[in-house]
Amino acid sequence: MTELEMMGQRAKAAAKQARGLSTTKKNRILHMVADALVDKTDDLLAANAPDVENAIAAGIKGAFIDRLTLNPARIQIMAKDMRHVAGLDDPVGEVMSMKTLPTGLTVGQTRVPLGVVGIIFESRPNVTADAFGLCFKAGNSVILRGGKEAIQTNTVIVDTCRDALAANGLNPDLVQLITDPSRERATELMRMTKYIDVLIPRGGAGLIKAVVENSLVPVIETGTGNCHIFVDASADLDNATRIILNAKTQRPGVCNACERVLVHKAIAEDYLPVLCKALTENDVELRGSAAAIAVCPQIAPAEAEEWYAEYLDLIIGIEIVESIDAAIAHIDEYSTGHSEAILTESYTNAQKFLHEVDSAAVYVNASTRFTDGSEFGLGAEIGISTQKLHARGPMGLRELTTGKYIIYGNGQTRQ
Amino acid sequence: MTELEMMGQRAKAAAKQARGLSTTKKNRILHMVADALVDKTDDLLAANAPDVENAIAAGIKGAFIDRLTLNPARIQIMAKDMRHVAGLDDPVGEVMSMKTLPTGLTVGQTRVPLGVVGIIFESRPNVTADAFGLCFKAGNSVILRGGKEAIQTNTVIVDTCRDALAANGLNPDLVQLITDPSRERATELMRMTKYIDVLIPRGGAGLIKAVVENSLVPVIETGTGNCHIFVDASADLDNATRIILNAKTQRPGVCNACERVLVHKAIAEDYLPVLCKALTENDVELRGSAAAIAVCPQIAPAEAEEWYAEYLDLIIGIEIVESIDAAIAHIDEYSTGHSEAILTESYTNAQKFLHEVDSAAVYVNASTRFTDGSEFGLGAEIGISTQKLHARGPMGLRELTTGKYIIYGNGQTRQ
Repeated sequence: MTELEMMGQRAKAAAKQARGLSTTKKNRILHMVADALVDKTDDLLAANAPDVENAIAAGIKGAFIDRLTLNPARIQIMAKDMRHVAGLDDPVGEVMSMKTLPTGLTVGQTRVPLGVVGIIFESRPNVTADAFGLCFKAGNSVILRGGKEAIQTNTVIVDTCRDALAANGLNPDLVQLITDPSRERATELMRMTKYIDVLIPRGGAGLIKAVVENSLVPVIETGTGNCHIFVDASADLDNATRIILNAKTQRPGVCNACERVLVHKAIAEDYLPVLCKALTENDVELRGSAAAIAVCPQIAPAEAEEWYAEYLDLIIGIEIVESIDAAIAHIDEYSTGHSEAILTESYTNAQKFLHEVDSAAVYVNASTRFTDGSEFGLGAEIGISTQKLHARGPMGLRELTTGKYIIYGNGQTRQ
Repeated sequence: MTELEMMGQRAKAAAKQARGLSTTKKNRILHMVADALVDKTDDLLAANAPDVENAIAAGIKGAFIDRLTLNPARIQIMAKDMRHVAGLDDPVGEVMSMKTLPTGLTVGQTRVPLGVVGIIFESRPNVTADAFGLCFKAGNSVILRGGKEAIQTNTVIVDTCRDALAANGLNPDLVQLITDPSRERATELMRMTKYIDVLIPRGGAGLIKAVVENSLVPVIETGTGNCHIFVDASADLDNATRIILNAKTQRPGVCNACERVLVHKAIAEDYLPVLCKALTENDVELRGSAAAIAVCPQIAPAEAEEWYAEYLDLIIGIEIVESIDAAIAHIDEYSTGHSEAILTESYTNAQKFLHEVDSAAVYVNASTRFTDGSEFGLGAEIGISTQKLHARGPMGLRELTTGKYIIYGNGQTRQ
C-alpha cells in the first residue's frame, strides 16, 4: 500500500466519524478551529514568509503573490469565514422525500455526506481553511492538494485544524494535506476510486483540464468562465454601460467577469462608440470582429480561436449580432456555460434568453459578477460548477452531499 | 470533422429543439412512436432474426440470447413502456427554488434537460426504445451505442423512432444510433466533451469499468451490485429465510440480487444449517469462510478476492460476523454500494444499520430486490447509479435533468 493509499484509507475511516457527528458538535468544532487559526497567527505568518520569498525568487509576480500572501487581517477573515460556515444550515439528515408504497415498503430519500472529497487547488492558503470548513460541515473528510508554492503555509494551516480536531476528541484525519508536489502524486490521487468519492479542482483552466482528463474519480468541473453580455436593441443603454463596466472591471481576474459583449446591430452604430469610449477610459483593451472594427476602428482584430478564451484581464471581445437568435447561437458556440446576461427592455426577449441559453446562470439586466455562492444566498461556496452533473453554478454545503435511499420493511419479498 | 462529431453536432442542435417542447407535445410524440413500433412489428422481427442467428452462430447462449430476442409480445411491452413514460410527470420546468435577495435580484433555480445524453449498452433491444423514451421525455437528445449483436434490430427500432419524429415535424436527430461496432468509435464517443453532456453505461461490470476509465465526458456509473443481507441475532428467522431466498433466487442475474449473507455469530450455529438447507434445496451453490464451513461443512471455501465479486448466478457467499459493527465493516470493505439489508427485530440495530451503511439503498427487513425505479415509485428507470455524484440509486426522469439559475435584475451591479 502506498503512502497516498494509506492516506485514503485514513480519510475513509475519518469520513465514517464525520457522517455521525451532530450539527451542534460540528459547529462547536468549527468555532474551535477558527480560534486556533487566530491563535496560531505567528506560526502561520512565519510559514508563509518563506513560501512568498521562494515564489518571488522563482520569478512569480502580481496577483499570484498577492493570493499567496497571508497577514493578520487575512487570517482573521479565514477564521471569520469558518465561523460563518458554522452558522449555516446543516444539509445532512434532510429527508428529501418519504412515502409508503403499495408493497407496504416505506421508501425515503435522505441527504448524506459524499464521504471523502479530494480538492486540488492552486497556491491560495484561504482555500485550504475554507475547503476544510465546508467539507467538514457537510460531514465529509477531505484530502487537500494545494499548489506547491504554498506548501509550508498549508502545512501549518492543516496542522492547526488537525490539532484542534484531536484536542476535541475527533479524528485529525478529517483533513489531510498531500505535501509531495509531484505530478505523479496528483495522478495517483485522481485514480484512487477506492477511497475518494469526488474530486473538485479549483483553479485555472489548465489545472481543471488536467484533472478532467486524468481522473477516474468523478470530478466536478469548476470555474472557467467565458461570460457574455448581449445588449439587445431595446436595452436601457445607460444601464448597459454601467453593467458592462461592472462585469468587466470590478474584478477582471475572476471567472464570473464578462469577457465578451454582443451588441444588436440595430443599435451598434450609435451605441458601440459610446461603450468603447467608456471601456477605454477604464483601461479595457478592445478586441473584436471586422464588423465591430468597421464601427469602432480603435478595436483591435480578434483571432478566430480567441473567442473561446477566458481573458481574466482588462480585455474584452466585441461582436455585432444580427438578432437575439444570433446572440444565442454565438453563446452556444463559444461559451464555457458559466454566466451570460441579456440587457433588454423586451419581455419576450428576456424570457427567450433565460429559456434558451444553456449556461449555469442566465441573467436579465444585471452584471454576471453576481454568480457566487454568497450572492445567490447559499451562504458560502466551494466552487462554481460549469458541468451539468450533480451541481451546476455555485456549489454550497448541499452540493457536498448526496442522497441515500432508506427502506423500512416488514418482511417484504419481490414477486 | 469526423462522422461521429457530425452526429454530436446534430444531437446538440436537436437538443435545443427538445428543450423547448411542451409536455403535451412530448407525450403525443411518445404515443405516436409507441404506435409506430407496434405497426413495424414485422420489420422489427425480420431484423431481429438474423441478429439472433448470428449471435447463436458465434457461440453465444443462454440469457444473452433471450435478452436479444424480440417477439410480438415483447414489442407490445416496448410500446406499453413508452406510453407509460408519456404518463409520467415532466420534470422539466420545475422551479426548485426562487427568492429575492437583498440586492433586489430574484434568483431562481429551475430544472432543465441535461442536453445530449450518450448511452452505451449491451445487446438488449428493449433498452434502445426505453432509453429514447426516457431521454426524450426529459427533454434531451440521445446518442445510442448498443451491443454489436443487436445492430440490425436497433437500426430498425431507431429508424422507426426517427421516422415518427420526422412525421410529426420534429428533428429526427433527437435519437441517433452508432452502427460502427468498433472500440475506436466507442472511445471517440467518450471523448466528445464538446457535444455530449453525460454518458450512461448500462451493462456488466466490464463495460462500466471500460467507460469509467476511458471517458472524458462525465459518466454516471450504474448497476454493479454486490448486495449483502445481514441476519442479526434478533432476526425473525422464518422471515429471514424467505427474504434471503427471494433476494437470491427470484432473479439471480440482476444487480439487486443478494450475493452475500452475513450471519450474527450468536445464531449461526442454529440458523446457518437451516438457511443452507433451504438455499441448497433451491439450487443455490454455497461458498463461505472457514468459520461458516465449520458450522456447515457443505459450504465450499470462498477465495479471498471472491468476496468482492458479483456472481449474478445461483451462488451465494456466507460469512459469520461477531457483531453488527463487524457486519457493517465487512460491507464497507466488499460492497459495491448498491443495496444492503439488515434483518432484525432490534430498533437500535435497524437505525444503526440504516445510518452507517454507505450504500445507495439500505433496507430493514425486506429483500434487496426492490431497488428499482418502478418499485421506488419513480415510474421508470434509466439505470441504478452506484456512484455518489448527481444521482444515487434508481434514476428516473428527474435524474436526466440538471439545474439552471435564472436571475431577474433591474440594473444591478456588484459592489
